[in-house]
Amino acid sequence: MKKAVVLLSGGMDSATTLAIAHQAGFLCYALSIDYGQRHHSELQAAANIGNLIQVASHQFIKLDLTTLASSALTDPSTTLPTKEEPGEIPITYVPARNTIMLSLALAWAEVLQSYDIFIGVTAVDYSGYPDCRPDYIAAFQKMTNLATKAGREGKYFQIHAPLINCSKAAIIRKGITLGLDYSLTVSCYQADESGHACGHCNACRIRHAGFIAAGIADPTRYQEK
Amino acid sequence: MKKAVVLLSGGMDSATTLAIAHQAGFLCYALSIDYGQRHHSELQAAANIGNLIQVASHQFIKLDLTTLASSALTDPSTTLPTKEEPGEIPITYVPARNTIMLSLALAWAEVLQSYDIFIGVTAVDYSGYPDCRPDYIAAFQKMTNLATKAGREGKYFQIHAPLINCSKAAIIRKGITLGLDYSLTVSCYQADESGHACGHCNACRIRHAGFIAAGIADPTRYQEK
Repeated sequence: MKKAVVLLSGGMDSATTLAIAHQAGFLCYALSIDYGQRHHSELQAAANIGNLIQVASHQFIKLDLTTLASSALTDPSTTLPTKEEPGEIPITYVPARNTIMLSLALAWAEVLQSYDIFIGVTAVDYSGYPDCRPDYIAAFQKMTNLATKAGREGKYFQIHAPLINCSKAAIIRKGITLGLDYSLTVSCYQADESGHACGHCNACRIRHAGFIAAGIADPTRYQEK
Repeated sequence: MKKAVVLLSGGMDSATTLAIAHQAGFLCYALSIDYGQRHHSELQAAANIGNLIQVASHQFIKLDLTTLASSALTDPSTTLPTKEEPGEIPITYVPARNTIMLSLALAWAEVLQSYDIFIGVTAVDYSGYPDCRPDYIAAFQKMTNLATKAGREGKYFQIHAPLINCSKAAIIRKGITLGLDYSLTVSCYQADESGHACGHCNACRIRHAGFIAAGIADPTRYQEK
């Protein structure tokens, strides 16, 4: 079996990506990064999803980005946005987050002699983050093949972003056909310790709209009002 | 003053790079990564050099790569090589190290609104690491401008590698003209806690040969035999 490193945040996109990689026949190595996110229950969700899909190994790397980078996602004193501003990059943007996570995945992949890295970014319904676009993924892939010993030896890394052109509804339909239990995933930027979602931050709104568009009952565990 | 983020390991190349950035008029923000390297006194050397050059800020980020990646540089049970094998990438190669470090520098740079990142890689006398080559640096720079909010807003990040075409002797001569005290720097892969060098690992050999080629007395503090 070919090995793949899969970045697993615990949200629905990365969980679906893991299910896709598993379905495609890869032996999956899940990597989750504790970067000081305020929605810490996301990491427990990642652990539960890794168990569900029976990954070969699951590593959690602690990297405190709060000393370098402030973001509404890591700073609990910031109020989270509840609507999107068209054309704006939101305050929940964490500088260079996907670049840092893909770099860590690359290090592990090279050690595992895996040449396939999966990331659940999507350029549709994506909150306007620049590091979710196809051009970015292509540029990262090109860089990896110059960065590594494996690349120099003629092995070719591929960065797979199977959801990059999918709407949230399409992601949900795909995951359901793969047997994914979305009640295990946490998308909410301010989920409580048990992973219950607030229901009104942008991540909650986009997620809930996805279930409606997919015509599937929303299994999200919401906080009691 | 324009701000620059400078990766500072505590070795002679990154120290010289910091001196060059400072001399060029940048307000320097030094970033050092504690990635579990066995030559931990390198980080104390980084602190001393940051003080000498009076950086605006110096951040130390702890990132335990030992769970993902084994390398002779992080695994104290491995015997370090004392000669180079032509054409081989040595066992001291840490997978994706420069990619991870540049990614962290990018995150900080974006927060500081700095568009200049300095790294002390060199493609000459460089021990054969793939992530020290000009093509790699160019590919990383291209990726950064797609990865970031700043890049999307038309600001352009530059990855400066001012030593990339310099021999060790040229680096040493440059640093001496900038007033750098190389006795503060630690290159040895197995320096002791006080930063005294072993004198026979590859890093020590390349460094010592550099001083000889530059015609400058080697100020390295060696361990007593």
